[in-house]
Amino acid sequence: MPLAALASKDLETLQAHLGHYRDVTLAALLAVVPTGEPQQYLYQPLKQHLSHMGKGLRPALCIATCQTFGGTEEQALKSAVALEMIHNAFLVHDDVEDNSECRHRRPTMQAEHGVPIAVNVGDAMNALSLRLVRENIPLLGHSLTQRIYEEFEHLMLKSLEGQALELGWVRDNRCDVSEADYLQLILHKTCWYSFMHPCRIGGLIAAQDTLDLDRFNKFGYFMGAAFQIQDDVLNLVGDAQRYGKEIGGDIWEGKRTLMLVHLFKHSTPSELEVLQGFMGKPRTERSADEVSWVIQQMQDYGSIDYAIAVANQFAQAALDEFSIAYGDTPDSEAKSFIPKLIHYMISRSQ
Amino acid sequence: MPLAALASKDLETLQAHLGHYRDVTLAALLAVVPTGEPQQYLYQPLKQHLSHMGKGLRPALCIATCQTFGGTEEQALKSAVALEMIHNAFLVHDDVEDNSECRHRRPTMQAEHGVPIAVNVGDAMNALSLRLVRENIPLLGHSLTQRIYEEFEHLMLKSLEGQALELGWVRDNRCDVSEADYLQLILHKTCWYSFMHPCRIGGLIAAQDTLDLDRFNKFGYFMGAAFQIQDDVLNLVGDAQRYGKEIGGDIWEGKRTLMLVHLFKHSTPSELEVLQGFMGKPRTERSADEVSWVIQQMQDYGSIDYAIAVANQFAQAALDEFSIAYGDTPDSEAKSFIPKLIHYMISRSQ
Repeated sequence: MPLAALASKDLETLQAHLGHYRDVTLAALLAVVPTGEPQQYLYQPLKQHLSHMGKGLRPALCIATCQTFGGTEEQALKSAVALEMIHNAFLVHDDVEDNSECRHRRPTMQAEHGVPIAVNVGDAMNALSLRLVRENIPLLGHSLTQRIYEEFEHLMLKSLEGQALELGWVRDNRCDVSEADYLQLILHKTCWYSFMHPCRIGGLIAAQDTLDLDRFNKFGYFMGAAFQIQDDVLNLVGDAQRYGKEIGGDIWEGKRTLMLVHLFKHSTPSELEVLQGFMGKPRTERSADEVSWVIQQMQDYGSIDYAIAVANQFAQAALDEFSIAYGDTPDSEAKSFIPKLIHYMISRSQ
Repeated sequence: MPLAALASKDLETLQAHLGHYRDVTLAALLAVVPTGEPQQYLYQPLKQHLSHMGKGLRPALCIATCQTFGGTEEQALKSAVALEMIHNAFLVHDDVEDNSECRHRRPTMQAEHGVPIAVNVGDAMNALSLRLVRENIPLLGHSLTQRIYEEFEHLMLKSLEGQALELGWVRDNRCDVSEADYLQLILHKTCWYSFMHPCRIGGLIAAQDTLDLDRFNKFGYFMGAAFQIQDDVLNLVGDAQRYGKEIGGDIWEGKRTLMLVHLFKHSTPSELEVLQGFMGKPRTERSADEVSWVIQQMQDYGSIDYAIAVANQFAQAALDEFSIAYGDTPDSEAKSFIPKLIHYMISRSQ
């Protein structure tokens, strides 16, 4: 299937489908939050954060994959919700680690409640994701639930490994990061937990031991890489109102994105020196003029266009890989949802 | 058994016993750390932190309880190590939340590696504690392992609830905290994960469904309260070299301890006003003179002596409760270890 924007009818179907997955996920997400004390310093901010759930790509992918392989929405729901919960835990800690002020057009947890409470709320989200995994037992049994725990354990460690690389490169102002390093970073930081594991867990629940879950890895990696690079591009050229985060925020935070890696590679030695000097400063000492200069350099060297092209290539590769990873399943609504999701994701503006 | 310092022979036996539990725990703790990348920004600092393991009260209590109820060290080991791992995760995030510089005579993770990497390392310790729980399956089977997961889920949430109270009271400068509030705080923050659950999990592994695990709750609570109050006292009057943390650190951090709660209650209105003003300042604006004044006030009002007396009462209550919770088990080396541990704990100077 060639990569193109969705026809308006397809877009409507996709949005309705995604909206349904989002609705069932959000309801179950809020239902697992304890109603006891302490509300003010823990469960109230936690619940408020969850209530601003995004598009719900991860639970949608998990449930749709389960359905495509013959399982039901009900069977996949607890795991899908656990994925959304752990995603929120990562976001809250991510914002502490990056010292971010704004997400989804709202102040981050740490901006609103301070670093100590934000770290603690993220930890509680982590614990609640495990409760959700456990709640699979009545429907799926001990042995299958145990396999899901293992998938979660793997996705947690991979994501934290990717995060460690990103934080370390920023802290030590590493300006020798290559494109291969960057892809390794996003494989760990994004692809495992956001795309590979949601598919793996959906497939696992539907087909249990009859399916080699590694069949989803390439597909999830390609989709994740397309998503992350697109996300980084939107951080630079998006509309702040729609995107919900500060434009250029990644540059303020010193994140190693594909555009920055491209700029490292193409800058002249003297430009690289200026860039290194800028990247070595603490965030508070960076000026808006300097950030604009970095963006201008990226534009001049075609770094942004390059990243857009790479994101599109990954999206196309994901579409191709979809026919392999999901090829032997019967046609269904859920099955046709997944490639549409790739089209939607790559053409999104927020 | 009356509360008294241990005879030197008993102290030697206790220390050898505790040292053995510590040795087996530390070896298994280090063995679970992944040897792959990224070492520099994740697994190396994580492993280094684990290598400075303290006395190992939690794993000791878990293994000794399992043995007392007829189980083996081998059966309890993975869970004991998981308890030590999650304890380390709490410590690392605790130091971020409290902005602490020093622990066990060493710089904290955040002082050495920065807040972002410290938050991420704590998250990875959390994930590794779950891996350790999962590693119970070959020896204990799915169903019992699942019960251990549930115990962990409960201890995580209870601890985070306690932590939320502590952080919230500091942030909002709550000076109306009562002794009952304080006991509620340490029940959640300390007692569940450090004392009640280690006993519960040890008993669960040994006796499975034949034991009502709630039998350990009072014992663990009394022991935990004695431990925490003693710890808070040492933070004020201990020897910095032996104790390993900054003396008066809790006052610098604004922590609501039993001494502070006692001082709130006994201060004159004008003294309370000064105290509230001091407690309302950010840490960096507090002076050593002010901290000394608070300690002097605590001494003048007998707040420290009061806390020591309460800690001793809890230790005595733990000893009395021990004969109920463990009373129906046959005599054994492991069984006699536990009350000795209480004597040791309450007379410790570090």
